[in-house]
Amino acid sequence: MSMYACNTSMVDTAFYSSDGDLMIIPQLGDLMIQTEFGFLSVQPTEIAVIQRGIKFSVEVEGEARGYVCEIYKSHFILPDLGPIGANGSANGRDFSYPKAHFEDRDCEFRIINKYLGEFFEAEMEHSIYDVVGWHGNYAPYKYDLKRFNTMGSISFDHPDPSIFTVMTCQTDDPGQAVCDFVIFPERWLVAENTFRPPYYHRNTMSEFMGNICGVYDAKEEGFIPGSASLHSTMTPHGPEAGVFEKASTSKLAPQKISAGGLAFMWETAYVMTVTDYAVDHNNLDNNYYKVSKFLKILVLAWT
Amino acid sequence: MSMYACNTSMVDTAFYSSDGDLMIIPQLGDLMIQTEFGFLSVQPTEIAVIQRGIKFSVEVEGEARGYVCEIYKSHFILPDLGPIGANGSANGRDFSYPKAHFEDRDCEFRIINKYLGEFFEAEMEHSIYDVVGWHGNYAPYKYDLKRFNTMGSISFDHPDPSIFTVMTCQTDDPGQAVCDFVIFPERWLVAENTFRPPYYHRNTMSEFMGNICGVYDAKEEGFIPGSASLHSTMTPHGPEAGVFEKASTSKLAPQKISAGGLAFMWETAYVMTVTDYAVDHNNLDNNYYKVSKFLKILVLAWT
Amino acid sequence: MSMYACNTSMVDTAFYSSDGDLMIIPQLGDLMIQTEFGFLSVQPTEIAVIQRGIKFSVEVEGEARGYVCEIYKSHFILPDLGPIGANGSANGRDFSYPKAHFEDRDCEFRIINKYLGEFFEAEMEHSIYDVVGWHGNYAPYKYDLKRFNTMGSISFDHPDPSIFTVMTCQTDDPGQAVCDFVIFPERWLVAENTFRPPYYHRNTMSEFMGNICGVYDAKEEGFIPGSASLHSTMTPHGPEAGVFEKASTSKLAPQKISAGGLAFMWETAYVMTVTDYAVDHNNLDNNYYKVSKFLKILVLAWT
Amino acid sequence: MSMYACNTSMVDTAFYSSDGDLMIIPQLGDLMIQTEFGFLSVQPTEIAVIQRGIKFSVEVEGEARGYVCEIYKSHFILPDLGPIGANGSANGRDFSYPKAHFEDRDCEFRIINKYLGEFFEAEMEHSIYDVVGWHGNYAPYKYDLKRFNTMGSISFDHPDPSIFTVMTCQTDDPGQAVCDFVIFPERWLVAENTFRPPYYHRNTMSEFMGNICGVYDAKEEGFIPGSASLHSTMTPHGPEAGVFEKASTSKLAPQKISAGGLAFMWETAYVMTVTDYAVDHNNLDNNYYKVSKFLKILVLAWT
Amino acid sequence: MSMYACNTSMVDTAFYSSDGDLMIIPQLGDLMIQTEFGFLSVQPTEIAVIQRGIKFSVEVEGEARGYVCEIYKSHFILPDLGPIGANGSANGRDFSYPKAHFEDRDCEFRIINKYLGEFFEAEMEHSIYDVVGWHGNYAPYKYDLKRFNTMGSISFDHPDPSIFTVMTCQTDDPGQAVCDFVIFPERWLVAENTFRPPYYHRNTMSEFMGNICGVYDAKEEGFIPGSASLHSTMTPHGPEAGVFEKASTSKLAPQKISAGGLAFMWETAYVMTVTDYAVDHNNLDNNYYKVSKFLKILVLAWT
Amino acid sequence: MSMYACNTSMVDTAFYSSDGDLMIIPQLGDLMIQTEFGFLSVQPTEIAVIQRGIKFSVEVEGEARGYVCEIYKSHFILPDLGPIGANGSANGRDFSYPKAHFEDRDCEFRIINKYLGEFFEAEMEHSIYDVVGWHGNYAPYKYDLKRFNTMGSISFDHPDPSIFTVMTCQTDDPGQAVCDFVIFPERWLVAENTFRPPYYHRNTMSEFMGNICGVYDAKEEGFIPGSASLHSTMTPHGPEAGVFEKASTSKLAPQKISAGGLAFMWETAYVMTVTDYAVDHNNLDNNYYKVSKFLKILVLAWT
Repeated sequence: MSMYACNTSMVDTAFYSSDGDLMIIPQLGDLMIQTEFGFLSVQPTEIAVIQRGIKFSVEVEGEARGYVCEIYKSHFILPDLGPIGANGSANGRDFSYPKAHFEDRDCEFRIINKYLGEFFEAEMEHSIYDVVGWHGNYAPYKYDLKRFNTMGSISFDHPDPSIFTVMTCQTDDPGQAVCDFVIFPERWLVAENTFRPPYYHRNTMSEFMGNICGVYDAKEEGFIPGSASLHSTMTPHGPEAGVFEKASTSKLAPQKISAGGLAFMWETAYVMTVTDYAVDHNNLDNNYYKVSKFLKILVLAWT
Repeated sequence: MSMYACNTSMVDTAFYSSDGDLMIIPQLGDLMIQTEFGFLSVQPTEIAVIQRGIKFSVEVEGEARGYVCEIYKSHFILPDLGPIGANGSANGRDFSYPKAHFEDRDCEFRIINKYLGEFFEAEMEHSIYDVVGWHGNYAPYKYDLKRFNTMGSISFDHPDPSIFTVMTCQTDDPGQAVCDFVIFPERWLVAENTFRPPYYHRNTMSEFMGNICGVYDAKEEGFIPGSASLHSTMTPHGPEAGVFEKASTSKLAPQKISAGGLAFMWETAYVMTVTDYAVDHNNLDNNYYKVSKFLKILVLAWT
Repeated sequence: MSMYACNTSMVDTAFYSSDGDLMIIPQLGDLMIQTEFGFLSVQPTEIAVIQRGIKFSVEVEGEARGYVCEIYKSHFILPDLGPIGANGSANGRDFSYPKAHFEDRDCEFRIINKYLGEFFEAEMEHSIYDVVGWHGNYAPYKYDLKRFNTMGSISFDHPDPSIFTVMTCQTDDPGQAVCDFVIFPERWLVAENTFRPPYYHRNTMSEFMGNICGVYDAKEEGFIPGSASLHSTMTPHGPEAGVFEKASTSKLAPQKISAGGLAFMWETAYVMTVTDYAVDHNNLDNNYYKVSKFLKILVLAWT
Repeated sequence: MSMYACNTSMVDTAFYSSDGDLMIIPQLGDLMIQTEFGFLSVQPTEIAVIQRGIKFSVEVEGEARGYVCEIYKSHFILPDLGPIGANGSANGRDFSYPKAHFEDRDCEFRIINKYLGEFFEAEMEHSIYDVVGWHGNYAPYKYDLKRFNTMGSISFDHPDPSIFTVMTCQTDDPGQAVCDFVIFPERWLVAENTFRPPYYHRNTMSEFMGNICGVYDAKEEGFIPGSASLHSTMTPHGPEAGVFEKASTSKLAPQKISAGGLAFMWETAYVMTVTDYAVDHNNLDNNYYKVSKFLKILVLAWT
Repeated sequence: MSMYACNTSMVDTAFYSSDGDLMIIPQLGDLMIQTEFGFLSVQPTEIAVIQRGIKFSVEVEGEARGYVCEIYKSHFILPDLGPIGANGSANGRDFSYPKAHFEDRDCEFRIINKYLGEFFEAEMEHSIYDVVGWHGNYAPYKYDLKRFNTMGSISFDHPDPSIFTVMTCQTDDPGQAVCDFVIFPERWLVAENTFRPPYYHRNTMSEFMGNICGVYDAKEEGFIPGSASLHSTMTPHGPEAGVFEKASTSKLAPQKISAGGLAFMWETAYVMTVTDYAVDHNNLDNNYYKVSKFLKILVLAWT
Repeated sequence: MSMYACNTSMVDTAFYSSDGDLMIIPQLGDLMIQTEFGFLSVQPTEIAVIQRGIKFSVEVEGEARGYVCEIYKSHFILPDLGPIGANGSANGRDFSYPKAHFEDRDCEFRIINKYLGEFFEAEMEHSIYDVVGWHGNYAPYKYDLKRFNTMGSISFDHPDPSIFTVMTCQTDDPGQAVCDFVIFPERWLVAENTFRPPYYHRNTMSEFMGNICGVYDAKEEGFIPGSASLHSTMTPHGPEAGVFEKASTSKLAPQKISAGGLAFMWETAYVMTVTDYAVDHNNLDNNYYKVSKFLKILVLAWT
């Protein structure tokens, strides 16, 4: 699985990946994605998924920024919801496929293919968006994250954040995901006699988080929209010190949190590597560990 | 699966069923259950499960009443919680096994066995509670329903009541339970822009409900503690008319419901028959269908 | 599983079964089936499936006749096609759900329910077809059997008739079907160096066959449209003697068979019983065994 | 599953069951079993299995007696041996199929069919043993129980007798067998610091035992060759008092037991009923419970 | 999985791979394969499979050429045939194991082992073909591809070529094969109202094809016996332009195709790399893309 | 999976691996392992397992030596025992978790983390062993190998050594273990008419063996306590010549072997590489192949 940013304007150029499926999460700017199956208009707080082998182009107006995750195995599906049952979490009927659209147009057309992590290209003299109709379910789709029917504790304790799973891509090993896609949307907190923010923990999976908009409740400083954090497998982490203090002393009345905000997590059993750009001094939040009361000396140094 | 009442005082008598496991839900009066594995003290809002073949006696002081369900296949287990994950719903660590207890006592001892729905008995001259110690996990247990960490909507819609599943006993056919044990405990309702009580529905499983204490939110009249209702497979039902009116017009602020109350449901893919006692005119709630605005003419008559 | 005939005209009456799903195969006369989900227009060579708990009425003009199968467990699904893969046999996209339709009409309305094999009824003062819209996939559907893309040998040998399976309803035991629905449509025979009709065999499942129209290739006499045959588990049977002779001596050029004809089979691992009507002397084909060269003394008599 | 005795001489008569597979365990007299697939010569300490729908006749010389078990679901297979792995227990290569044999013979031939527990018959004018050759693996077979490579404790404790499982017929529910076929052959006992005979226990399955030859180590009296015992689900039982005393006081040197003896068990998750013949006073061992020190008052009486 | 050619003559030398199983498809010249289990005589239109760890030598007379595929995980098995059922496709009874053969011969004997892609060797002074007898099913085998009972459309549409699967080697992920082995043998085409050759498509698996003899129907030029083609994952491809024209205009009478011809495909979910030899200018078909009307500009160039 | 030696004394230093679980087998010297969950005292003939992400320190007095295996996927579990059933092999109740222990101590504390095979470190000013209590089952444990209830042949033949499996860590592919942990403890041999030591064989898995104490029955020379042997996938091996001669000629009376001895095997479907230290001339047993009568020329040389 690789996760990278995509910020490009293509004219008469289409792209497809032979390596995996792409989940695209715009954070800034609306995307008009043209695919062989038709158009997907995707705005921040929505996501799009484009599968392996499907050709597409993206048009943006003005500045655009977002997150892209490519999975090299299997596909995103709705999780087996267990006792949550019907109506809760993400529902199949809220996912939208494109309506067929074609153009019969001669032009210089360039196709870029990503295969085994390298790029190849070919030229055609006709628009590749010439698919007149389609049926089946191997097709790109979009989903509006505001339609996620969030479940949580309505009694006394703090559940695992897995309860916010929108979609999952499974390995063959139950519980070991290629990628779980989890969101932290606007929601009510009513659990009594408990510590309401995410608690300190280690995770056998690695957690990549992004912030689409607003303030994330477990990290009120630094984690601005468009930024990202990575907690690798089994390294302990948790809410920042200020959040801890506040949550430990507040009166636990019903409270709506993250109003107007939306953060997300890609959680994976695989290992993520970071690019040079990501660890560049100018891009790193060098104060990250200081806001944590308990974790401040856990920042790892290469020996 | 059969569900029946048990209200008896045994002296030097033990019982075991060769037919199935028993879930015992006291509604009135505390039970002191002696088993071959030791004692289980069980009070209303707690449950006990005693498996096939395990000998036990029940001692009560004063009046006692409750519900008993016998399953003829498989065993009760915690459901696969899916995205609910750790901490939510019922947790294994909250189930209590008895501590070994034995007596070396000569006496007239009667053993009653239920086998294929008939009763057999044998006499011994020694207490059968002579088990000095035990290990393994095929042992009776109790669970305090107040430890159930209830999940629900913290956003906008009404989830399936399956989200309140405490335990399940599965058939070989996923989704078709021998018996799902579901509770309706004290909890917060915060879902916005919705109808908060259970909605009108049909169910491919049959629903047997009991009320342990308090007022059940979908049926405020008639369904008194100690009573029971049965909605057989595919017969439509829902909240009573008054509940519907109130829920349709109230302002949807955070609200704690069923405070101090507790109802439960046994839901089964099998067919339940009713005893003569259950359909006796004096025991039936003959006004049940009248409080329902929509369902009143759906009471079935034998043709 | 029970299989029975349904030939009725209902006015302001709806029916639902709490016992199982119904597959309806009209053989004579067009059916206009009204359901809570909308209308299904079903003609001979089409089928309809109406699931447990769904209310419906059937309107016919003139004479109507057909076959109905009720399954008491699970649902009909498309079989896992194995190597047949995409495009072959029945395809999901050819199954049609009804379009939502409702009426807001006060009237005397009778609902008949079948539950545990008995009939119950209730009266309402409003049409029950008042469902304004619906989503989900637990809904009645129809399928046109002429859309079945028939596979068969294109080389040299005769495959198992399971290759003609349209839908199946599975038990938990792989290979043991509650009901396999198989058809014998118009098709090409090109296999060389072989005996092309169904061969003599025994079957661990029982075979109930019906003839919708035309002449069935393994039984050219007697098995007229609207009739039925039953071969119970492990009783040997095969093509009639005349068919055997012809198939053994003909030159095996490409040949289109059953042109304009359509027979079907319901095959089940359960045991079927026959009604009095079915074994009435006037309805039985008393010459059935005589046309079989080999099997004629195999007609079983009760000892 | 039914278990019954078969002691008959057929001339130009063949039998087949539409209800299930038969395991035949001769205890006295050699059997020459003619089947459609050829002959199986089966002697005491060997077994034969004849599947549903396969026609066969049995010829015996002189007196013959044995045990027959009919399973109404699935088939006997070798158990998944787990860590026992290759070479241990029963091995596939030791099971013998018949060699094809046919006769082209006109005669009066009677076929008897068992279907739903009733018998039917038909007449033919030709021997039904006219199968010239066959392939496949749905065929009758025999197995010599002396080829069973018995595993057991070679250290210090007493394993579950399931370790002596020769074949099993499984339900869909792991661990719940339609029928486990287990033997107690000649073997070494070397476990130290333990009680070597079967210990006192209850079983969620019912145990039907037979004695083919010799003395069974847990019951030295009464359980003569050709007799049978039945311990129904969850009724406690164990070795007789004399066996208990001896095993509790003997020095535990390596010891070969059951030399020349062979007992067996059919263990089933289903319920067995007994025939009138089985519970006839003259056939019952009325002293059975007296030889048990601990269990003597556990003989159940109908209340 | 690697696929390579093997064209060698060994004297007193044996080879075994610790890395995987080999499927050997001779295209020119007969092979006499000596193994520890005996001899396999394999000719063009037959295949042999020799498993990991089994020592063998190959003797050829004159020129020999063919295809070899090595799978690094699991083994080849017959696919679950689904509705095709008995008799169709490849049948277990047509696979031949060698008959045990041994030699007691002192000589200089060299053993070559392939382990982790590297070669190792050892010397012995005795023939390693000294295995006197064997039992089990982990043994080399051969199969005559002319025994494949080919299924296909006998009605109106073109099925997925998966219908021609002879054997498969599965990953743990259903539908993702380590290697599917598929053939395109002589067969009848009778489907009406359709385009009969393989249609244009993309495949999530990579397709390696070889031509054993004759003319392949989707590519009449260039793809001569002994050559190979590779279409990597998700790159579109289809029949050549001439084939398209002809198939689009021909009258669709029953037609026997590939008479005397035989092509095959190894299809894999893994990625195949090509050797220098394979992409050498002299070995490449540089006109491949020109015969395709639609695909001609899709030949990828390294950017 | 990697297997390496660990011989270190840590003061105020803790270690955790993000890569996998560790099985620690002390061979010389007692270990006091401090973990976040409490202490594990582990002596030779016992083992400890410490899972991914759990911090621990090891204290030894005097010389210490042993074997450590790290598994990069899944966890060790008890194998499905199959017919061995209850009581045999390793039993869950004999595995010991640590009792919670904490210290509230300020100090210089160094944490070393192994992640992707590299080491990282961090400093803290407080003991990380500050966990006051815990629940759950993801916790380190120990097991005393002398509690293994060894099964084996008590009749006539030699079973697969898989019968000595203590724990297994499975891949997704049944029968292909990440690591099977097998022991060869003191036990009785009573099988008659057979060759009692391990027979000559090849294995699709690689076998790493270690000797904890005593003499291993299949290799009496050279394989001293603390040494190790490795037989890679599919390379044949077996008992040494002297063992073969003795076992072929001895009288097969009951015999207790490996009295006071204990060897073990880690068997894996993955490939093991050897360190420079392991193949150093001074550490290798250069006479290993000479004691084997049959295998002596099979030592592989790099070509």
